[in-house]
Amino acid sequence: MDQLRPTLAPSTAAEQTAYRQDLTDGLAGFLDSKRVALHEVAPEAGTLVDAIADLTQGGKRMRALLAYWGWRGAGGGAAAEQAVRAGVALELFQAAALIHDDIIDRSDTRRGKPSVHRQFEGLHLRQSWSMDAERYGVAAALLTGDLCLSLSEEAFNSVGPEAGSGTEARRIFDQMRTEVMAGQYLDVLEEVAGPSRPAETAVDRALQILRFKSAKYSTVHPLCLGGALAGGGPDLLQAYAQFALPLGEAFQIRDDVLGVFGDPAATGKPAGDDLREGKRTVLIAHTLKTCSEAERRFLDEHLGSSLLADSTIEELRALIVRSGALAAAEQMIEELTAAAYQRLDGLPVDPEVGGALRALADAAVRRTS
Amino acid sequence: MDQLRPTLAPSTAAEQTAYRQDLTDGLAGFLDSKRVALHEVAPEAGTLVDAIADLTQGGKRMRALLAYWGWRGAGGGAAAEQAVRAGVALELFQAAALIHDDIIDRSDTRRGKPSVHRQFEGLHLRQSWSMDAERYGVAAALLTGDLCLSLSEEAFNSVGPEAGSGTEARRIFDQMRTEVMAGQYLDVLEEVAGPSRPAETAVDRALQILRFKSAKYSTVHPLCLGGALAGGGPDLLQAYAQFALPLGEAFQIRDDVLGVFGDPAATGKPAGDDLREGKRTVLIAHTLKTCSEAERRFLDEHLGSSLLADSTIEELRALIVRSGALAAAEQMIEELTAAAYQRLDGLPVDPEVGGALRALADAAVRRTS
Repeated sequence: MDQLRPTLAPSTAAEQTAYRQDLTDGLAGFLDSKRVALHEVAPEAGTLVDAIADLTQGGKRMRALLAYWGWRGAGGGAAAEQAVRAGVALELFQAAALIHDDIIDRSDTRRGKPSVHRQFEGLHLRQSWSMDAERYGVAAALLTGDLCLSLSEEAFNSVGPEAGSGTEARRIFDQMRTEVMAGQYLDVLEEVAGPSRPAETAVDRALQILRFKSAKYSTVHPLCLGGALAGGGPDLLQAYAQFALPLGEAFQIRDDVLGVFGDPAATGKPAGDDLREGKRTVLIAHTLKTCSEAERRFLDEHLGSSLLADSTIEELRALIVRSGALAAAEQMIEELTAAAYQRLDGLPVDPEVGGALRALADAAVRRTS
Repeated sequence: MDQLRPTLAPSTAAEQTAYRQDLTDGLAGFLDSKRVALHEVAPEAGTLVDAIADLTQGGKRMRALLAYWGWRGAGGGAAAEQAVRAGVALELFQAAALIHDDIIDRSDTRRGKPSVHRQFEGLHLRQSWSMDAERYGVAAALLTGDLCLSLSEEAFNSVGPEAGSGTEARRIFDQMRTEVMAGQYLDVLEEVAGPSRPAETAVDRALQILRFKSAKYSTVHPLCLGGALAGGGPDLLQAYAQFALPLGEAFQIRDDVLGVFGDPAATGKPAGDDLREGKRTVLIAHTLKTCSEAERRFLDEHLGSSLLADSTIEELRALIVRSGALAAAEQMIEELTAAAYQRLDGLPVDPEVGGALRALADAAVRRTS
């Protein structure tokens, strides 16, 4: 996102940089205190916190930044502790989701490094331990994800009364968790049940999955959460959601395009990773709608095969382009982005906040990683 | 536990029965509301809640009952809503831990039924879906466990201000989660690193694992949580912990004995399940300390082998008996139980509460399932 910072007013950019630093410090401080607590159980248990600290060093901080500007737009003060803590909770929730997602998808890499289960597998191999290294890696990562999910909750709780029982912010946080898990399940279900479901409704199913698994959680909930913490009323939160939903959808469709066509050097993921994982994204759903029966069989046969040859990936990419699916996805991104920008213009927030949200929106949909 | 109810005064038994019913109703009502919420995301997502509802119908409710009597012993009122909600949170946390534990241990059964990942695997097979049934089962169960962990937190939050940010009850709940996850990791680690670690310290390592993975979480934290919610002071909570820790340790060693020697009809688990899973319990640690080098090699070779023949299980059991490990474990249970009872007598609680805690303690250490 840094390349877009020039579009921000200098004071806004400085404020965002300060928040980013507070967030990084807040994450590190929180995890340090947890490392000490785990160390008291047993020194080896600190490994779980190390894995979380390592993973949360990377990432674009998009959700935390949306929460921050949502907070500011609702009248919250600059550099407020509550906004930092909420950001820490969101970043930890995101990390927990990624750790478990990578187990489910058998992903080898994340943010340019080995995924957490592969890191633990590597530890097993280096130590020449007994039994199965892969199984140990998955078990350790599963527990690391559980711990990370619990720490996210602890961080959210530490925000204080604004996030307490019965508050709007708590309701949003709970809804976010539930929807992400439901959306992830629909994603897993579509991988296995999709091939026997009608191709005509595949795009709708893919859109529903991306809405719950990603869009609402990546943009709508963080922005509204920040707004709610600062006491924003229903009208403001609704306006936030109407801007953020198309933005989140565009963001995820961009992600789907990058998952098939992205440059590994930029994404930190192998080329065509989504194809190996068998993700039935909007891109695939569009392809299925227009391709021939033979092409469809080819797609169903190779999608989700972990041993996909580079040449097959090329063939699949060519099919996706030829079918018009890539163009259709790019058009959806354009339309959704236009809708988001239109609603952004109508948001009842300071120009400074509007400018920051515009820069975040640009980065979300124009990104290459 | 029902067979022990005659030792309770009739009024205590009636109160406990009423709490159990409130707990069952509270769980069902909470999960029904979540099923509705998930149904709004997509009808298929309700499956995750169904799996949680099914699993939480079973179980002994030991943790919830300890929380209830901890609450009552600290002056909390009978049939209070807070104690029910805390019980719901504890039961859901336990369910989340079991779902993920069964994935890690590759357990086929839980509470006499297929484990959650096996249930989802069965659904895949019945529906003749594509891709790998086992992999789908694990992915769906992983997400169900994540959802269950999140719902446990939601339930705990619904207790209200007594469980809010900065309270003792919140601190205990957070500590419980962190310690269980750390303890489970130590357990997984011992399975792979144990064979290359000194046999002389194996018992100490096994005791440390059972303390964090199970004992504190099964007895100490629930009892103290109930006490803290009712406003119990540090002296009472410390007395609770001093009673509950040896009880929890005895409870878990009984569990370890049942995991090797238990009757499958009573435990709802296959015979010798812990041996197939490679658990390095106190029983195994004791065996390693006294057995011959050849016996040790036999143990290391077969422990954790999923294809363990019944005859090999018999040989392993005979070795554990012959080494004196079973007798040593029974003696530990006796001594820990005696220590717990002694501290129970000194607890500053009403005789009614003391009687209820004694009945729970009896059930925890004398059980066959």
